[in-house]
Amino acid sequence: MDDSGAPGEDYCGQSVRTTIGMIGGKWTMLILFELLQSERRYADLQRRVDGISQKVLSEELKRLVAEGLVARLVVPTTPPQVTYSITEHARSLDTVFAALHEWGHGHQDR
Amino acid sequence: MDDSGAPGEDYCGQSVRTTIGMIGGKWTMLILFELLQSERRYADLQRRVDGISQKVLSEELKRLVAEGLVARLVVPTTPPQVTYSITEHARSLDTVFAALHEWGHGHQDR
Repeated sequence: MDDSGAPGEDYCGQSVRTTIGMIGGKWTMLILFELLQSERRYADLQRRVDGISQKVLSEELKRLVAEGLVARLVVPTTPPQVTYSITEHARSLDTVFAALHEWGHGHQDR
Repeated sequence: MDDSGAPGEDYCGQSVRTTIGMIGGKWTMLILFELLQSERRYADLQRRVDGISQKVLSEELKRLVAEGLVARLVVPTTPPQVTYSITEHARSLDTVFAALHEWGHGHQDR
C-alpha cells in the first residue's frame, strides 16, 4: 500500500483477488449488504434482493454460510423459522460497502 | 451514514445497490482492479484475470467503456494496438479496492 492509503504497485494484489473471488458477484454483494443492515428471513431477503431467483438465493446463502460470512439460525417453531444474519467475520466488510456508498453517492449524476 | 463512517440504518441503500449493479460482478471487479494498477492491452488483461473467457472479457470491456469507467485507446500501428485504461471517474473506486485489500489481508488466515 503506498502512503496515500490507496493501493499502489507494491499492492498485495492477491488478497484483493481472493476477496473478490469470495465476495465479488452482484448477488453475493447485494445479499451481504442486506444482512449488514439487519438479520433477515429467507422470504424477506428474496423480496429485498431485486430479481434474484430462489435457486440462486439458496445457493448463495449455502456458500456464504460455508464461508463463515453468514449464520443460519433455525427456530424450532411449527413451521420452523429460518433467519440469516451476518457473522462478525463478515461485519467488517462494512468498510467495503461504505466505500461503495461514497463512490455511488459521489457519482450519482454521472 | 452513522458517525462511525460505517453505513447505518439511515443508509442511502439505493446508491450502494446501484453501484453494486454497475461494478459488483466478479469479472468486473477483477478487470477494474487490474486497470487500477496500470493500463493494459487486451491479451495482458486476459492473462491477468484468471479464468475469464474471451467473450466475457470483450463484453465486460464494452460495457465498462459505455459506462465511462474504462477508456479504450487505439494506436494506428499495423496491426493496430488497443490499450485499456481506467478513467478518472473510476479511479476513485480505489477506496473500494483498498477496503477489499484491508479486509482480505485481515482475514487471510480464516
